[in-house]
Amino acid sequence: MSLTDPHRLFPTDPATRGIARRLFNSLEGVPIISPHGHCDPRWFAENGRFPNPAELFVIPDHYVFRMLTSQGVPMTDLGIPRIDGGETETDPRAIWRRFAEHKHLFRGTPSGMWLDHSFEHLFGLTERLSADTADMYYDHIDAKLATEEFRPRALFERFNIEVLATTEGALDDLKWHKAIKESGWSGNVVTTYRPDAVVDPEFEGFADNIGKLSDLTGEDATTWDGYLAAHRARRAYFQEHGGAVASDHGHATARTANLGKADAAALFAKALKGECSAEEADLFRGQMLTEMARMSLDDGMTLQIHAGSRRGHSAQVAAKHGRDMGFDIPGRTDYVGALKPLLDEVGLEPNLTVILFTLDETVYGRELAPLAGAYPALKLGPPWWFFDSYEGIKRFRETTTETCGFYNTAGFNDDTRAFCSIPARHDVARRTDCAYLAELVATGRLHEDEAFEVARELTYDLAKSAYGL
Amino acid sequence: MSLTDPHRLFPTDPATRGIARRLFNSLEGVPIISPHGHCDPRWFAENGRFPNPAELFVIPDHYVFRMLTSQGVPMTDLGIPRIDGGETETDPRAIWRRFAEHKHLFRGTPSGMWLDHSFEHLFGLTERLSADTADMYYDHIDAKLATEEFRPRALFERFNIEVLATTEGALDDLKWHKAIKESGWSGNVVTTYRPDAVVDPEFEGFADNIGKLSDLTGEDATTWDGYLAAHRARRAYFQEHGGAVASDHGHATARTANLGKADAAALFAKALKGECSAEEADLFRGQMLTEMARMSLDDGMTLQIHAGSRRGHSAQVAAKHGRDMGFDIPGRTDYVGALKPLLDEVGLEPNLTVILFTLDETVYGRELAPLAGAYPALKLGPPWWFFDSYEGIKRFRETTTETCGFYNTAGFNDDTRAFCSIPARHDVARRTDCAYLAELVATGRLHEDEAFEVARELTYDLAKSAYGL
Amino acid sequence: MSLTDPHRLFPTDPATRGIARRLFNSLEGVPIISPHGHCDPRWFAENGRFPNPAELFVIPDHYVFRMLTSQGVPMTDLGIPRIDGGETETDPRAIWRRFAEHKHLFRGTPSGMWLDHSFEHLFGLTERLSADTADMYYDHIDAKLATEEFRPRALFERFNIEVLATTEGALDDLKWHKAIKESGWSGNVVTTYRPDAVVDPEFEGFADNIGKLSDLTGEDATTWDGYLAAHRARRAYFQEHGGAVASDHGHATARTANLGKADAAALFAKALKGECSAEEADLFRGQMLTEMARMSLDDGMTLQIHAGSRRGHSAQVAAKHGRDMGFDIPGRTDYVGALKPLLDEVGLEPNLTVILFTLDETVYGRELAPLAGAYPALKLGPPWWFFDSYEGIKRFRETTTETCGFYNTAGFNDDTRAFCSIPARHDVARRTDCAYLAELVATGRLHEDEAFEVARELTYDLAKSAYGL
Repeated sequence: MSLTDPHRLFPTDPATRGIARRLFNSLEGVPIISPHGHCDPRWFAENGRFPNPAELFVIPDHYVFRMLTSQGVPMTDLGIPRIDGGETETDPRAIWRRFAEHKHLFRGTPSGMWLDHSFEHLFGLTERLSADTADMYYDHIDAKLATEEFRPRALFERFNIEVLATTEGALDDLKWHKAIKESGWSGNVVTTYRPDAVVDPEFEGFADNIGKLSDLTGEDATTWDGYLAAHRARRAYFQEHGGAVASDHGHATARTANLGKADAAALFAKALKGECSAEEADLFRGQMLTEMARMSLDDGMTLQIHAGSRRGHSAQVAAKHGRDMGFDIPGRTDYVGALKPLLDEVGLEPNLTVILFTLDETVYGRELAPLAGAYPALKLGPPWWFFDSYEGIKRFRETTTETCGFYNTAGFNDDTRAFCSIPARHDVARRTDCAYLAELVATGRLHEDEAFEVARELTYDLAKSAYGL
Repeated sequence: MSLTDPHRLFPTDPATRGIARRLFNSLEGVPIISPHGHCDPRWFAENGRFPNPAELFVIPDHYVFRMLTSQGVPMTDLGIPRIDGGETETDPRAIWRRFAEHKHLFRGTPSGMWLDHSFEHLFGLTERLSADTADMYYDHIDAKLATEEFRPRALFERFNIEVLATTEGALDDLKWHKAIKESGWSGNVVTTYRPDAVVDPEFEGFADNIGKLSDLTGEDATTWDGYLAAHRARRAYFQEHGGAVASDHGHATARTANLGKADAAALFAKALKGECSAEEADLFRGQMLTEMARMSLDDGMTLQIHAGSRRGHSAQVAAKHGRDMGFDIPGRTDYVGALKPLLDEVGLEPNLTVILFTLDETVYGRELAPLAGAYPALKLGPPWWFFDSYEGIKRFRETTTETCGFYNTAGFNDDTRAFCSIPARHDVARRTDCAYLAELVATGRLHEDEAFEVARELTYDLAKSAYGL
Repeated sequence: MSLTDPHRLFPTDPATRGIARRLFNSLEGVPIISPHGHCDPRWFAENGRFPNPAELFVIPDHYVFRMLTSQGVPMTDLGIPRIDGGETETDPRAIWRRFAEHKHLFRGTPSGMWLDHSFEHLFGLTERLSADTADMYYDHIDAKLATEEFRPRALFERFNIEVLATTEGALDDLKWHKAIKESGWSGNVVTTYRPDAVVDPEFEGFADNIGKLSDLTGEDATTWDGYLAAHRARRAYFQEHGGAVASDHGHATARTANLGKADAAALFAKALKGECSAEEADLFRGQMLTEMARMSLDDGMTLQIHAGSRRGHSAQVAAKHGRDMGFDIPGRTDYVGALKPLLDEVGLEPNLTVILFTLDETVYGRELAPLAGAYPALKLGPPWWFFDSYEGIKRFRETTTETCGFYNTAGFNDDTRAFCSIPARHDVARRTDCAYLAELVATGRLHEDEAFEVARELTYDLAKSAYGL
């Protein structure tokens, strides 16, 4: 028995499947480049054991627990922590059993495929997870987690990861990254500069955070010039102490702005006083994307824009459990108007890389591919979040390649906090890209020898060049 | 000769086709669940003969006659009644001939496939309909309609319908449903609570309708409390006398609201006086969706929202022929913002079922699947109207399954007033779902034994559970 | 060796591929109908040689050079002229080499496929273009261009073009069209009435253009009545001297208006004085679409609306190089509200043809197909610009056919200024349509004999009837 099909995600036509298989086989041994994600650097600094199956697979993964929530399983039955510290399930085995009973909900989903991939290829399980096998699974995984081979660093090496980027806030001291470096371990774990707390006037404690920014940098970050200088200092710090190659920005829209200096300074002063309207706060965030792009021109860091998520859609869930609880819902996003100020300023720079991500697939063909197919500074990030999947990647390729080709895309990102899903996600991306390339070959749109080149580029080279790795 | 291909809608790859075939065969004998539609209950109460082929297939079906209109055939040449009672074709054979001459317009359309399915599988015709065969068809069908086997109840049984829901206005006396019950016939025909006339301040005669609502219920429906009580009373009446399991709401957008009681009462008072602005009327309709959801929590009825049709797009056609004439055109719909008030109120209730329908396919992946994949109260209705088709169902599954799985969808609805198309529509839905499942199996995304389970659930179980049947 | 696959774009399943092949073979010898495009009529009037490979394939084709721009090749390195007359590369061989070095950027794109088609089928080249073969290519193509067989008229005949429409501004004297006629050459090259300069108040020199319109027509085009009469006169002139069968309108949105005469006249007066706000200018353009539709009712010309491009997105590129430089980016377009005024006026006219084009694929199924499937005056144009491609045509058919069928579509347009790409583009369209039809046949949605009829209609008849050719 087997949980995963060796031919999974390849085209069904036998001849086309053969091409896909050959392309995929040629990628054997190509290391994983993971240039954007949310793993915890502490894992690799301390190299402690993962506590138990529930804390590895269920509690931290909103892709997983929100599916049970959607079918009426209370989040507290799954051990999701409460803001008020109130009761929540604490028995990991009870949580695991509830998860196992509902495993069928994941039929046909990428989460289901990632889970089965981990169960089989990482833990050696070949029976399906269900109410009946829940305890066997729990005991088996828990025993494995107790071994040296399942410590974070061993897994990192087993996964053949060449580089893994984590994401830290601008005020982070990067102590775990420093500890990793000092440990002498050879794994390459780099940070990413994520300045939400100090670029979003609506972020909790914005003014205090600017105060901390001053303290950390020795700049007077309460003036516009000092504030920009402080960002430059933190970016340099992230490069020096965390190996950062990119910044990352998660905004509700892709809005950018390019105000004159006096206007920008005045807006910043207002933000500091907490007097920005919602519209002004949005304008300030947009201005900061352009400022970050200008800094990128100087320090060479890649700029990532993750736009389009409406965070915390359920007021009740947000109040009870906080952020990142699976209730973040995408919305329509207009990139063409939104990015114009930034692009008019720096869009033609050949040495700048701005990577665009979206949760609105309608913009692939209508907006993103035409923009990336013209502006030298733009690259398209891979399908994100709900669209990091077989169908999502397929639609991405089908709607962008004809307009902007392969070389205006930035390879694959797993963007995950679920460490064990990394090999599974890269496996899906590689297979899906090979399936797409095989279709191109079989329908006379690409020569087979070119497809081998492109397969490697999509897997390895484009991610490295887009992030300057 | 044959009008329909026994392998229709199955994948072309032979191995994958084999899987689809096996899945489809396993559904043989599974009864039709039709939990939402617009058949006339009078048919089953009186069990009279259908008058003639034109009145069965052409005149009442705007899917059919609008296609001829689009190619320049005047609606009056097809016997479509005029509001002013002016001239319109009255000879059913002449109408049938015009339809037959234009049958080629339906090539590649679901209407074409449904028609051929009925012609062959219901009436035993195997030659194609065209100008040449128009009279033969007319005579053949007309003769069949004269027989007992083609009376509504006999067809209902032949179609193997387990339950059929019709849709009645809130003020309806349900006499046909009562007559069906009293007749002793075993067919299960239930009603659906559709309160447009008493929840839409812009509905013709709104204030009068509220008066009737008072009369029917004994409540003073001109006060906000009395109005809500009257709804509760009518819903109970629809449950008791019509077997209702759901309400249905067709709004231009999915807007919902959750006003405080005083504000809602004031808005209602304004609506009663006919003093609502367009914006206020829209707000009132949105408020009533939330009120209906609250009532559903008490009485267990499922809430259906059919959003996104801009009704009566052509002013001339609306003036001459009225509603439902094929000139209803979809528009963009934002569900994420629109549904938030309702979801903040009742979205986490595990015992509530709100089924969402859309005419804007872009929201499947971006909005509906993420919402249904998180909120316990939400389920996704099947593709509706223009999208109740092979390609439409395929896109629905491809863009929703990866995010919300199968179990946050509500099975199939035919939503039709064309009785003879019911078996054809369910046949298309079953085949298309089996084709999709076969692709999942062939590409290693679902185990074949699971696919058999899911095929039956999509066909039967999910519709029953979503509607509490 | 070969650059193009004889089975390109056909389905991969062998049986389905066989059907597609048979359908495609049946189209051998069917002439090209090119009812909308931007070729230069001067080519055919003078019949001079095309200057060199760079001026044939690179410099005039923004589909091609923007792809190099997007990867950092400066436009001036590719010989793109500057508005200020400043330096730009003038050596065609140097330009060609740069292009050749970057040929891999076009992998998987329609431009890549069109180029290879021309290289192989027009110039007889079978090695791939690359840095290594750049000079060989250049010399080979240049030598061919020097021969009689590669003059414009010879190519026109070799391409088997039955009719080719060019596009001229309303003030054009049509001297090249007259010269073609007078030359006695049998090629049918017709013009199209494109009145941007005299219907868009924001067009450079609008008032002066209206003065020229008066001069050309003898009407006082500064009055509303005279202005409309002048349009009628120019349309008649375009019909008489250029064989025009259509007008063409490229607006940022599909907005239409139907003002009363006094309001329209007042708005026109304001436009003439240069006093229109942006909103009023937009309203005036919308009004003129309805006026043109009314004129079409009289003179029988087809009305084409190309909506949704945001022109000149990069301020820097626009300032340095001007219009049509590959920096025109699509935006969302609402057709349903936008077209209502025009449709309420003339939408039910069976003798009017309005052809709709879009750069927003989301409207195919949601808006365009429902509109065209109801209004007699509407037809859908083929996929345009970024979507004139295998995937684009496939999506167009898959999302429109089920709602409006084949007969509310208008056949294929190449819409190109790249003369040599015409056979390649029609080849792609024919193959993609045959592939789609083969899928319909193989999945029982169309009988094979019907597919042969439809294949010819999509290729030839529908374009002729939509344009009254």
